[in-house]
Amino acid sequence: MEMRSLFEPRAIAVIGASSNPEKIGYRVVENIVQSGYPGGVFPINPKGGEILGLPAYASLSDVEEAVDLAVIAIPAPRVLEAVEACGVAGVKHLVVITSGFSEVGDLETERRIVSVARDHGMRVLGPNVFGIYSAASSLDATFGPGGIAPGPVAIVTQSGALGIAMIGKTATESVGLSAVVSVGNKADIDEADLLEYLVQDERTRVILMYIEGVKDGERLGRTLAEATARKPVVVIKSGRSKRGSMAAASHTGSLAGADEVFDAVMRQSGVLRAESVQEAFTWVRYLASTPHPVGDDAVIVTNGGGIGVLATDACEKHGVTLYDDQAVLAAVFSGVMPDFGSSKNPVDLTGQATAEDYARSLDAVLAEDRMHAAIALYCETALFDTARFADLLRDVYARYRERKPIVFSLFGGERIDTVIRDLRAEGIPVFGDVYQAVSALGALYRSKRWRRQPKGAIEPIDLPIEEIRGILDRARADGRAFLLAPEAARVAALLDLKMPISRVGRSLDEAVRLGGEIGYPVAMKIVSKDIVHKSDAGGVALDLENEDELVDAYQAILRSCRASVPNAIIEGIEVAEMVRPGIETIVGARQDQSFGPVVMFGLGGIYVEVMKDVVFRAAPVGRSTAREMISELRSYPLLLGVRGERRKDIVAIAEVVVRLGYLVERCREIADIEVNPLIVYDHGEGTRTVDMRILIKQPSGGEPT
Amino acid sequence: MEMRSLFEPRAIAVIGASSNPEKIGYRVVENIVQSGYPGGVFPINPKGGEILGLPAYASLSDVEEAVDLAVIAIPAPRVLEAVEACGVAGVKHLVVITSGFSEVGDLETERRIVSVARDHGMRVLGPNVFGIYSAASSLDATFGPGGIAPGPVAIVTQSGALGIAMIGKTATESVGLSAVVSVGNKADIDEADLLEYLVQDERTRVILMYIEGVKDGERLGRTLAEATARKPVVVIKSGRSKRGSMAAASHTGSLAGADEVFDAVMRQSGVLRAESVQEAFTWVRYLASTPHPVGDDAVIVTNGGGIGVLATDACEKHGVTLYDDQAVLAAVFSGVMPDFGSSKNPVDLTGQATAEDYARSLDAVLAEDRMHAAIALYCETALFDTARFADLLRDVYARYRERKPIVFSLFGGERIDTVIRDLRAEGIPVFGDVYQAVSALGALYRSKRWRRQPKGAIEPIDLPIEEIRGILDRARADGRAFLLAPEAARVAALLDLKMPISRVGRSLDEAVRLGGEIGYPVAMKIVSKDIVHKSDAGGVALDLENEDELVDAYQAILRSCRASVPNAIIEGIEVAEMVRPGIETIVGARQDQSFGPVVMFGLGGIYVEVMKDVVFRAAPVGRSTAREMISELRSYPLLLGVRGERRKDIVAIAEVVVRLGYLVERCREIADIEVNPLIVYDHGEGTRTVDMRILIKQPSGGEPT
Repeated sequence: MEMRSLFEPRAIAVIGASSNPEKIGYRVVENIVQSGYPGGVFPINPKGGEILGLPAYASLSDVEEAVDLAVIAIPAPRVLEAVEACGVAGVKHLVVITSGFSEVGDLETERRIVSVARDHGMRVLGPNVFGIYSAASSLDATFGPGGIAPGPVAIVTQSGALGIAMIGKTATESVGLSAVVSVGNKADIDEADLLEYLVQDERTRVILMYIEGVKDGERLGRTLAEATARKPVVVIKSGRSKRGSMAAASHTGSLAGADEVFDAVMRQSGVLRAESVQEAFTWVRYLASTPHPVGDDAVIVTNGGGIGVLATDACEKHGVTLYDDQAVLAAVFSGVMPDFGSSKNPVDLTGQATAEDYARSLDAVLAEDRMHAAIALYCETALFDTARFADLLRDVYARYRERKPIVFSLFGGERIDTVIRDLRAEGIPVFGDVYQAVSALGALYRSKRWRRQPKGAIEPIDLPIEEIRGILDRARADGRAFLLAPEAARVAALLDLKMPISRVGRSLDEAVRLGGEIGYPVAMKIVSKDIVHKSDAGGVALDLENEDELVDAYQAILRSCRASVPNAIIEGIEVAEMVRPGIETIVGARQDQSFGPVVMFGLGGIYVEVMKDVVFRAAPVGRSTAREMISELRSYPLLLGVRGERRKDIVAIAEVVVRLGYLVERCREIADIEVNPLIVYDHGEGTRTVDMRILIKQPSGGEPT
Repeated sequence: MEMRSLFEPRAIAVIGASSNPEKIGYRVVENIVQSGYPGGVFPINPKGGEILGLPAYASLSDVEEAVDLAVIAIPAPRVLEAVEACGVAGVKHLVVITSGFSEVGDLETERRIVSVARDHGMRVLGPNVFGIYSAASSLDATFGPGGIAPGPVAIVTQSGALGIAMIGKTATESVGLSAVVSVGNKADIDEADLLEYLVQDERTRVILMYIEGVKDGERLGRTLAEATARKPVVVIKSGRSKRGSMAAASHTGSLAGADEVFDAVMRQSGVLRAESVQEAFTWVRYLASTPHPVGDDAVIVTNGGGIGVLATDACEKHGVTLYDDQAVLAAVFSGVMPDFGSSKNPVDLTGQATAEDYARSLDAVLAEDRMHAAIALYCETALFDTARFADLLRDVYARYRERKPIVFSLFGGERIDTVIRDLRAEGIPVFGDVYQAVSALGALYRSKRWRRQPKGAIEPIDLPIEEIRGILDRARADGRAFLLAPEAARVAALLDLKMPISRVGRSLDEAVRLGGEIGYPVAMKIVSKDIVHKSDAGGVALDLENEDELVDAYQAILRSCRASVPNAIIEGIEVAEMVRPGIETIVGARQDQSFGPVVMFGLGGIYVEVMKDVVFRAAPVGRSTAREMISELRSYPLLLGVRGERRKDIVAIAEVVVRLGYLVERCREIADIEVNPLIVYDHGEGTRTVDMRILIKQPSGGEPT
C-alpha cells in the first residue's frame, strides 16, 4: 500500500515551520499539534528556536528520527532544493503546499520536483494544496480551520478554497471526517492513488470528491469502479457548461474533459454525480448514516396532500419506487388512519392527524416487511406541540435507523425550523424541503442498485491486432495520418465487420459468376487508373436486378468507357453488393484526451447531428454493456421496432461496439475510428459497414482531427 | 372589482364562532381580532354569549350592520342553510372553511351551495379552505398560526396544509405578506378571480401560487398573462409525474391537466414555474426585494476558483449571461486585483484576497455601468474576520440594492453560517449554495426578459367559420363524431390548407386535360361505389410522368376494373397530384380538458412518436408565436436546413398552426383536428396537407378519442 505513509506517517517534518501565527508554516504545526498526532513532529526553520513548544531544526538532516512525511511550505524558488534534501533524508511522502508552479504556467519546475522525488522513491502530493487530514493518525497537517471531528466521510478536493470551506461545513453539519486531501496540481499523486487507500480504509464509509480536470481518466475510472463496489463515492465535477469548463481550465493546470465523456465514465463507474456542493453534502451525510433498503418499495406518509404530491413527483425524478399494493396499504393503515385520510401511497393522514397518529402510521410502515423505506412529510398545523413532535420522531428514528432508510421533511415556521435544527444536530436525516429529502433517498437507492447489479463482464475477443498494427505502421511509414479506403476495408475485414461485398471481374464470364456469388441486385463500376470521372465516362451501373441486366450493363460500360477514354487501360469491372436500406447508425471509438479509449454509439444522420442522441463509455466494453449503451439512446424505440416495424439486429450492433472498443484499447496508435453509417437490418439479419474511417495517432503525440 | 369585498370587507361575520380554543371557529375570531382588523366583527353562535370579548349573535339576522364577508366554519350538513341565511342578509362574499364536499365525492351539495350563493349575488371561496389573510384590511380571517407580517408577497394555494405551513415559513424567512388565500375545492372563486384583484393591488409585488389541478385553464392562462405583464408570478404545480398527477387527482376535486400543456401555458403566460417549495420561496423572496437589471451582463466575483466554476455552470443552466469583454474586465480590476488573481469572468481574487480586496472588487463591478448584476461568492478562509466581513457585505448591499441585482453565496463553517443567518434576517440575499443563489438571479432575469419582450400579437384572420360549422352540424346530424374524408377536405379548403389537388375525369379527354392542369407526375384511381378494393381490381396507377403514360394507364384501369367487377357502375377516374417528398410534420389542435383550445406542432413520424419532440400553446396564437413554437423543437435544425439541405418553408408551417389554433378557439364543437402529415418543402415552396382528421365534440360533452 503505497499511500500508507501519507495517511499514517510515523513522523512528520514541516519545512518552512514558522513562529509567526500569520504564516501557513505556523498554522500547519499548530493543527498537527492540536489534532493530537501521536508521532514525532519536527519543525524545520533555518533560524532554529522553538515553535509552539517544539524545538525547531535548522535542517532536515539534523533530525535523527526517520521522517515519513514532509510538509513543504516555503517560497516556490526554494522548493526543489528542499525536495532534494527530503530525498536524501529518506522521506517517503511530500506534501507541497507551496503554489506558483504549473497553475501559473511553470510546468518545468513542477516536473523537476516530481522527477527528483521519484529518483529518491518519494511520492508528491501537490503542489498548490492545503495539506492533508487523516483520522487514522489523528493528524491534521493542513492550514485549515482545525478542530476536525473524526467520522465516516473522506473528502478529496482539487480546489483548496472549496476544501477548506468544506471542512467548515462538515463541522456545522455534524459530519465527521476520516480524511481530507487536497490534490492541487496533481503533479504526481492523483485521485486514483488516494482512492486505493481510502477504499481499504475501514473508517471511511463514503467518499466525496471535487474534481475540476482529469489527467489519467482511464485509471481514475477503473479505480472508481473498484471503490464503488465497496462504498459510495459522490463526485462534484465543475465545468459542466462550455464556459465553466473554460474557467476550470484557466484555474487549474489540467484540462477538463468533455462533459459527456466524464458523465458516461462516472455512471459506468457507479459514481453518484452531484450538481452542487449542497446536493453532494446532502447525499454524503445520508449515505454515511443509513443502511441500504432491502427492497425497492418506499411509502410516503404525510399530513398534507399537497406536499405528498410534490414528494411523489420528486420520487419519480430521483428514481425512488413507491409501494403500490392498495390492499396491503389499506390493511396496514386501517387501525391508524384518521377519517378523511387516504391509505393510498402517498398515505395522507390529513391535517386532522395528531402527532401520535402520525408516529403510529410511520411505525406501521417501518414495521411492515413489504415496505422498505419511509418518506415522512409534515406540514406545520395550527395546533402543534414542537417538543412532543420532536420526541416522537426521535423515537421512531432510534428504533428503525439500523434497519430501514427513513427521511423526514418538515415544512412550516419558526417551530418547525427549531425541530429541524435540533434533530439534524443529532444526526437525524430531517430536511426542510421535500425534493432534498427525496434526493437523499434516491442517492441511497442508486448506490444500492449499483452494488447489487451484476457488473457487465468484458469477454475476451480474439482480434488479429498485430496484423492491424502492421497496416497502421505502413500508413505511418507513408507519412499518412489516416488509412486509405482499401486499408480501412482490410481492417474492417480483420475486425469481422461486414462491408458490402465487392470483387473485380476481368471478363464477362467472371462478372456473371461474381453477380451470382454476391447475389442480386448488384452495382458495377469500371476499374481503370486512367478513368477518373467514372460516372461521366459511363463507367457505373446501379441496381442490376439479374444476370441479363448485368450482361447488358457490362457491355455498355466497356463500350462507353472505350469511347470516352480511348487509350485507357481497363483492369476489369468491379461487381459490388447493393446495400439494402436499413436504419443508419454510427459506431465510433477514440483516444479521449482525459479518459483514454472510449467508444460511442448513436443513430445516424440527423439523429446524431441534430438531436445529439449518442452514448459514450470508456472502452473496452463487454456485450452486456454494449447492449446497455444501445438501450440508453432516446431513439432506442426505433431499434426495438415502432409503427409495425420489426425489431432490429441489436446483437449485431453490440458486436460492432464491442470490437471497436476493444480495438482502440489494445491499439493506442488509433486516434479515431468511425463506422458511419453502420446499416442495421431486422433481428437476425445483421449489419453492413458502409464506410469506415481510421485516423492514426502521430508519433509526435499530435492528434489529427 | 368583484373581489374587493373579499379582500376589503367593511364588516365580517364568523358563522360557527366558538369560545372553545380547540375549535376552528375560535381560532378564526382570535386571528381576526389579533390582526387588528378595523371593521365590525360578528361572531355567530346559536348559544349567544361572548367570544373573545365580542358579543356573539344567535343568528346573522340579528346583526344590524351590513356584513360584506361571512366565514363559515360549521359542520357540512348545515352549511347550505347558512349560505341561504347569508344571502338573505345581503352578504357579498362567503369563505367556506368547512370540508367534506366534492373532495370526498359530494359534488351535489357543493353545486347547490354555489347555486344558492349566485342566486343571491354572492361569490364563494372554498369550500375546504383555511380562510383568507388580507394586508389591505389588516385582516387575518384564517385558522392559521397568526402573527402574519404585512409585506409585498401574495400567496394563493390550493393545499390548505401547505398554505398554513407557508405562512409559518414566510415568518421565519422574513418575507412579508400582502395576502394569503386558500382556494380549496374552487367551487366558485378560482385563481383567476383572485389574480384580478392581486394584479391591481399595489401592496402586492410578487404572487406565489400553489396549484394542483386547473378547471378553467383558458381564463387562468389569460389572467396570468395580464398579471405577469405587471408583476412576477411564481407557480408551484404538483403532479408533474404520472403518479403525482394521480395522487393530485385523488386529493382534490379537480383534475390535473397533462403536464406538458400546463407547462406550455405557464411559459406562454410568462409565469416562473418552480419545481419545489424551496425554489419558489428563494425566487419570491429575491424578486420582491430586487430591481430588474438594466442589461444582461453579470459578473462573478469569487475568492475560490472552484466555486467560481460551479457558478459559471449554474449561470448557463439558469440563463444568466456573463459579461465577456476581457479588456474592460482587466481595466476595471487592475487596481483591486491581488497577485495570482484572474480578471476573467469569473473574477478570481484567490484565497489570498482580504475582505477589503473582496469588497473593493464588488464595488468595482457595481459601479461599472457596463456590468449589470453581481454574483458574489466567498469561501471561508483560515484567516477570516466574521464581523468585519458581514459589515462589508452590508455596506455594499445598502449602497447598490436599489440600482443593481446582487446575490451572495457564502460557503464554509459555523462562522459563515452566522453571517448567512444574520444577513438573511436583514433581508439581504445571501445563500449557502451557489446554485440557489444563481437560480434566484435567473428568475429575475427571466422576469425582466418577459416584461420587455414584445408580446406576440394575434392577427385577426378571416375564416368562413359558419360554413365549417355547417359541415360539422351535418355530420353530427348524421350521428357521426368525425368527418368523412371529403368533408375534411372541404374544411381544409376553407382553411386554405393545400391538399394534393384531385379531380374526377369522366372521359379520357377530360383526364388528359386534368393531368395537364394538375401537372405531372400524377396518380389515377377508379371512382366507383361498386369497387371496394381498388388496388386489387387494378384501379390504381401511380407516378404517371406524362400524357402518354396517363393515356395508357387510363385504358388499363378501365380494362382491369371491367374485367374484375363486370357490373360495376364507373363514375369516372380520379386524377391526383403526386405529393413530392418533403419533411413530414404534424400540426394538431384540440379542446384540452383543463386549458381549452390548444395547438400543437411537431415533426412527423418517429420524431413525434419516439422522441416526443412536440410543442404546445394555448390557442389562438399569432404568427410570431407560431414561429416561436416551431423554433422550440429540438429538431428545429432540420427545418433550418442541415447537411446541405435548404431552409424549409417555416412561414407556411406557421400559417397552418395559426389557422388550426384559430379554428379550435372559434369552433368549440371541434374536439380534435390534426394534419398528419403536413409535408413541408423548401422556403417559398409551401406545404401539402396530405391527410386531415377532425373529431367532433358530442352534444353530451363526451369526447371521442
